[in-house]
Amino acid sequence: MTNNLLVFQSDFGNFDGAVSAMHGVAKSVELAISIYEITHQIPQYNIWEASYRLFQAIQYWPANTVFVSIVDPGVGSNRRAVVAKTINNHYIVTPDNGTLTHLHHSHQLSEIRIIDESKNRLPQSGESHTFHGRDIFAFTGARLCARKISFEDIGPIIDTSSPVALPVKESILIGNTLEGSIDIIDLPFGNLWTNISRVQFQQLANEYGQSFQLTISANDQTIYEKKVAYGRSFADMEIGEPLLYVNSLDMIGIALNQNSFAEVNGIDSATKWDITIVNVSNL
Amino acid sequence: MTNNLLVFQSDFGNFDGAVSAMHGVAKSVELAISIYEITHQIPQYNIWEASYRLFQAIQYWPANTVFVSIVDPGVGSNRRAVVAKTINNHYIVTPDNGTLTHLHHSHQLSEIRIIDESKNRLPQSGESHTFHGRDIFAFTGARLCARKISFEDIGPIIDTSSPVALPVKESILIGNTLEGSIDIIDLPFGNLWTNISRVQFQQLANEYGQSFQLTISANDQTIYEKKVAYGRSFADMEIGEPLLYVNSLDMIGIALNQNSFAEVNGIDSATKWDITIVNVSNL
Amino acid sequence: MTNNLLVFQSDFGNFDGAVSAMHGVAKSVELAISIYEITHQIPQYNIWEASYRLFQAIQYWPANTVFVSIVDPGVGSNRRAVVAKTINNHYIVTPDNGTLTHLHHSHQLSEIRIIDESKNRLPQSGESHTFHGRDIFAFTGARLCARKISFEDIGPIIDTSSPVALPVKESILIGNTLEGSIDIIDLPFGNLWTNISRVQFQQLANEYGQSFQLTISANDQTIYEKKVAYGRSFADMEIGEPLLYVNSLDMIGIALNQNSFAEVNGIDSATKWDITIVNVSNL
Repeated sequence: MTNNLLVFQSDFGNFDGAVSAMHGVAKSVELAISIYEITHQIPQYNIWEASYRLFQAIQYWPANTVFVSIVDPGVGSNRRAVVAKTINNHYIVTPDNGTLTHLHHSHQLSEIRIIDESKNRLPQSGESHTFHGRDIFAFTGARLCARKISFEDIGPIIDTSSPVALPVKESILIGNTLEGSIDIIDLPFGNLWTNISRVQFQQLANEYGQSFQLTISANDQTIYEKKVAYGRSFADMEIGEPLLYVNSLDMIGIALNQNSFAEVNGIDSATKWDITIVNVSNL
Repeated sequence: MTNNLLVFQSDFGNFDGAVSAMHGVAKSVELAISIYEITHQIPQYNIWEASYRLFQAIQYWPANTVFVSIVDPGVGSNRRAVVAKTINNHYIVTPDNGTLTHLHHSHQLSEIRIIDESKNRLPQSGESHTFHGRDIFAFTGARLCARKISFEDIGPIIDTSSPVALPVKESILIGNTLEGSIDIIDLPFGNLWTNISRVQFQQLANEYGQSFQLTISANDQTIYEKKVAYGRSFADMEIGEPLLYVNSLDMIGIALNQNSFAEVNGIDSATKWDITIVNVSNL
Repeated sequence: MTNNLLVFQSDFGNFDGAVSAMHGVAKSVELAISIYEITHQIPQYNIWEASYRLFQAIQYWPANTVFVSIVDPGVGSNRRAVVAKTINNHYIVTPDNGTLTHLHHSHQLSEIRIIDESKNRLPQSGESHTFHGRDIFAFTGARLCARKISFEDIGPIIDTSSPVALPVKESILIGNTLEGSIDIIDLPFGNLWTNISRVQFQQLANEYGQSFQLTISANDQTIYEKKVAYGRSFADMEIGEPLLYVNSLDMIGIALNQNSFAEVNGIDSATKWDITIVNVSNL
């Protein structure tokens, strides 16, 4: 039942020995485990982005892969540590701090259990309370991955509707206007990834080359307003020209061909950005 | 015949879930595949550097290793996707956009096949046309690596003399003067790697400690001019002093001992730099 | 006896093909080897940090793991290349330039052998003397890992008390005052990691919430002076507030909750920083 795949994510960076210590703990649990990563460059303490990157990668991994995600500003506090199971039989070992937001919102969680720290803690790690990534999450993830502990034995079950979740905005279509927001910036390219699905966008229009009035605002200030065409891919436009396109998660993205939309237009992921897309050809 | 080694390279960075999605696709094709990387920090859209880094690393891997290189500004356009085989039985899965330049120029390509996308595409990835790294290249590379598809079945063969190739400059020796150019900067150390081979340099001179007149220019403007000695390694010089040396690809490099020649002298890889090395002892 | 684990560390960064060339060499020696990393982002030529990161990670890996650490400003000079064995049966393949400082200082080295380069060098790598990471260390580490060479056959033994070691400061407790120094900055979070052990700190006091007079100075100039509380973890404080805490190596750290103590207070690792912690409640 195990595929021996353990996939890490964190905001630890790759500068020091922290990630390697987690890998070593996992390999000490079971040599047969193969370790991979999503990223360790989640911006520090950015739970939203951890949730998004996990959501972005998880579906491409085989069933039974165990993910360990540690963006954990509340380490050592009484925030819960959990293991969630998805409807596709992936497992996520994580602090319950919002990291499960996008999986929860897309109805992918099938069962959540609280980690009983009395039986799921690296031996001899008792006096430090600042690196649960190593002492609780990597250790527990590796043991689950190697089936040295069953999912049922992790700890008590909780309601799948009750993980800590950050607020998620929904896009809406009103007449000729789509209103949405920017979920994340597609680094390092600087494309904007919106919360508008391809399916919803196609209710507005569905022809490559068609133009839309695109408005991007932050705190009700308009930052960008321009006619932008819908393209099949970046190379449909001249270099430096903007486009709307279907991104790799089947959502609508906003890009410049071979340049950074975010940087050129002063957009970063720290602020809440709203966008509207108006099908001007119907007006 | 397979060694189950799949080695990735891209300009995706390591910030998000893109690389992990490719890894997951590969592991979903075949769990036995072992995944490694060259780098994911190729500067965005820099096909020259992708070609160089591939050339730099490939020869040290065992025969039958499959490489997947994705620097792909033309994704979704009609640029070709190919698999190339080398005379050392390495395979490279890549957009045909110049990524094969250095392997082609050094006569290492033995066979090239166009990827037939109708049979080499990740199932259910049909509506997005911006992430062929995941949907075409990782998927095809993994299937080739695991021999779920044979090289012959990838698609039609093309002439090995016809991959897209960027222009490559040749160094020349005229009397006491070597004229060459800077192929790339050896990051993070800031050494300059030239297109002059050790063998050619030794036609000029071959004694450690000997001095040469080194001139570096960009657009016919001289940026650097100084007598520089030929050293066995960096530590032959005082800290901060320049040297000519044989780099790890058996080519001539230019360095400062424990400092960055590129940074100190304002040299970056974006411009075309010419160098001349004159054996002044013969004058 | 082998676990086939080979763990790399260097100051090469992840920009180019250098790390991949080392991996390829290792896989060419033996396909069964599994390769992991500590980090390749050691600041260039920073042997102290290489020593510290190695020390930080090594203890979490299984016995018989082979580590290859290459921060090697003296490459090509007559500095020694060695393999050290620890009391926990880890192996470290490294230039003998101070990389073993912290393992030596904590009495973890049980045997050191000089690499006989005449029999431990990648075939056909003879003309370049600037990449021993690939030609000597990766090659030798892989052969040792795969037991193609025994530790005893590496070369002549040297006294374990004689590796090159950088000076290490000891913390001292005088009355109510602990005097120590900052060993390293915990990146990317910016916490300061001191050379004061939890055990020693607890001789001063041992109650969460208790306050101490913390002074940080560089070159006898006071940079920071404030009352700081001892906390169980970061979240014990308000966001942005400082604390003393037990870090993941069972040493005393200094942090801000969810902010960078180093950046906010202008502290970097390049200077020698001294700290004093005074138990003011006893005064």
